[in-house]
Order: sequence, then C-alpha cells, then structure tokens
Amino acid sequence: MEQANKDRSLVSKVMDGLVTGIVEDKYGAVLPPQDVLSKDFDVSRTVMREALSMLLARHMLDVRPKIGTRIRPMRDWRMIDEEVVNWRFRAKPDQTFLRDVIEFRMLIEPRASAQAAARATPAEVASIRDAYNAFRALRPGDAGYVEADELLHTRILVASGNQFFQQMAAIIRGALSAAREVVDQKEGVWQTTVDTHARVVDAIERHDAKEAEAASRALIDFTADEICRMFEAERPMSG
Amino acid sequence: MEQANKDRSLVSKVMDGLVTGIVEDKYGAVLPPQDVLSKDFDVSRTVMREALSMLLARHMLDVRPKIGTRIRPMRDWRMIDEEVVNWRFRAKPDQTFLRDVIEFRMLIEPRASAQAAARATPAEVASIRDAYNAFRALRPGDAGYVEADELLHTRILVASGNQFFQQMAAIIRGALSAAREVVDQKEGVWQTTVDTHARVVDAIERHDAKEAEAASRALIDFTADEICRMFEAERPMSG
Repeated sequence: MEQANKDRSLVSKVMDGLVTGIVEDKYGAVLPPQDVLSKDFDVSRTVMREALSMLLARHMLDVRPKIGTRIRPMRDWRMIDEEVVNWRFRAKPDQTFLRDVIEFRMLIEPRASAQAAARATPAEVASIRDAYNAFRALRPGDAGYVEADELLHTRILVASGNQFFQQMAAIIRGALSAAREVVDQKEGVWQTTVDTHARVVDAIERHDAKEAEAASRALIDFTADEICRMFEAERPMSG
Repeated sequence: MEQANKDRSLVSKVMDGLVTGIVEDKYGAVLPPQDVLSKDFDVSRTVMREALSMLLARHMLDVRPKIGTRIRPMRDWRMIDEEVVNWRFRAKPDQTFLRDVIEFRMLIEPRASAQAAARATPAEVASIRDAYNAFRALRPGDAGYVEADELLHTRILVASGNQFFQQMAAIIRGALSAAREVVDQKEGVWQTTVDTHARVVDAIERHDAKEAEAASRALIDFTADEICRMFEAERPMSG
C-alpha cells in the first residue's frame, strides 16, 4: 500500500513535469521515446508509461504508428471528465437537476448556434446538414437515432469555433439523453422536434446568427415545456 | 506491464460497479468498509483502495473519521478535470485562446450573476459582500489578492444555485488568472475594476437580476477591451 501511494505521487510528479515541458514547448510536436523520457525523469518505465497513459486519456497525447507520441493541440485537451458526466446522467434525474440541465443548455446552445451561423466554414455547414439529414431519416427507437441526435448537436458546438463551447459537448450529450426519455415517448412530439432542428440548421446555413439563436432557444423551450408538464412545475429561468 | 494494464482495467471495472451501486442507491449514505467491498467485488484491497481513491479525487466520496466513507451529493461530483484546466491556463495564451476565454466568461458570468440576484439566500448575499470587502481591501500584488478575487467570483457562481454553473468555477478562475496579467498591470485600471465589482455585488444584494447581469457584462467588457488593446485586434463577440 505504501509502495502504491509512493508510485501514485511519483506518477503525478512525472505528469506535471511532462506537461511543464509541453507548455514550455520543450519537445516540439512529438515526445521523445519512452525509454529516453524514463531516463530523463529518472523513473521506471512502468511509472512513465502510467503518466503517459493518464495524459493520453485526457486527449493531450496521441500515439501514431511510426511517428511516435504526438502532442495534441491544446484546444483538444479534455477539461471535462466524461466519465463523471456519464455517471452523473446515469442517475435518475430529480426536478432540480433537470431544471439545471435546461438552464445550462439554454446558456450554451443558442449562443453556440449563433456563433456557428457567424463562423462556420462551408465544410462545417455541410457536416451539420449531413448530420441533420441522418437524424431526420430515423425515428426514436431506431438503431443509431441517439447517436445521430448527438452528432448534430456536437457538430453545431464544434462549428461555434470556441474551444470552451466545444468542451461542453459531453454535458450537452448527457442533457440530451436525460431529456430524451421524457420527450421522445410522446405522440406527435417527434415531428415538432425534427422541424425545430431544421429551423436551426437552415439558419446556420444562411449565416443568420439571430435566427439560429432564436431557433435553438425554441428547441430547448419545447423540451423544457415537456419536462415541466411532466413535473407540473414552474418553468426554469430561460433568460 | 501486462499486470499493470490488467490492474488498470480491473480498477475501472470496480469504479463502474461502485458508481452503479451509488446511483441505484444500493448503499445509502455511507459505503460499506473497504474489506467488505473487496470481498463483494472479489478484488484485492489494493485494487479497491485505488478505485475508491479515484472516486475521492472526483469529489464523489468523503472520508469522515468514525463515520466511514460517505457518498457525496451528486451535485458535488466534479465534471471538470481541474488539473487539465490548470495546465491549459499555464501555457502562454494566444489571441484565439483569450477570445474564447472572454466569450466563455461572457456566457457564464452575467447569467450566473442574474440568477444569484434572483435566488441568493441572505447567507449567500452576506458571503458575497464579505468576499467583496476582502477583495477591495487589497491591491494587485498583495498577498491574497488573487485568492480574494477568485473567491468573490466563485461565491457568485455558487449563489446562482445551478450546479452546472457552479462546476464552471474552475474555468472561470483560470480565465481570471489569464486576464490578470494583462489588466492589473495598468495604471488606473484597479479602481475601475473595484468599482465595477461593487456594481455587481450591490445589484445582487438588491436582488436586481437585470442590473446584476448588466454590471457583470460591463466588468467582462472592460477586461476584454484591455486585452484587445494589447492585441490591437477586433473585439470578441460579446452577445
């Protein structure tokens, strides 16, 4: 046990040393081989391997055959612990949690849609349109429906061009799954969902930021209404 | 190495099993003792200890003397990987990063201030006022200045009552430190900073959500202007 603790704090120290080297641009684009790093840090290969695997899991590194361990651009580094997000959304949601989720979506998504409309490249617009077409072709319960919904929302966040908005994708995906159980099971809801998504996608395509924001807001409002009807509670603040 | 990998995937499996039990409310408020859990999961005490320490680091558990390992309320579970946030903000910021940071603060903080004004309890209002008074009493460069600034912003996020806004505190603290180098070093800037903070705090105290939002926006606008003046670049979208 003491040995295990010692190893752990050693791994932390090595991680910190590696990251310091990375942010100070000591290594360039590719890390030196593991055995060189182990010698440099004067630790066992097991400790070095563990430190590297922790950075890999956080999307800070990339292993490329024949090239080596590439340092990923800093905007890819995962500030969100997706495991915790998934665990958090696995629990049965209570009313406060759903209110907080809706408020958070209302904060992130309309603004991200507006920025996607303002900034999206032609390739990004096409990727959003493709994701919408795939989503529209499926019905709730079909294989791939959940993934298609998530991909559409994720691509809009990516097209916002803001790395912090992009980082929030994991939380938005969790929020979608929490809402899905409530919303998709109702008759007649699906068509409205598809139409409202279309409004967002059309606006982004036309680079109409104001309309993209309003349509995204309408989409979340619609979900919020369904959730509130379920709880027969007051509307969350949607500002 | 193979043994290390095997242990790692075993630790992941145990973590997942523990979390499943937690979200399904199998354990109540306190986890069974470690040796009982090791037997239940049929793993060594080292593996169980490691799985528990991973959950502890994510603020999912709490070790209380004489009580045992308490399960923390789900809203405390850390969705943000603070280590990655700190590493990301340790790197020398480029212009795109600062733009993204300002946009993200502009997204989170005005809305959080408005909700703090709407929802803060008397105790929360008092804690915000206290943090402001401590902040006002110090000058940039004084010991504790950075912490006082961070505490004020964190308490406003907490008083928003929304667990997702609260989770963003780590990123906001990083954003403050990135801006600080630019803003605090200029003559005459400090007094304006204090006055604008006062406007936010006053509005929260009066439960004036609209003014709290506007004042928070003004505070970030001011920082953004200083940063842009440095880069002589176009203003980030401030929505």
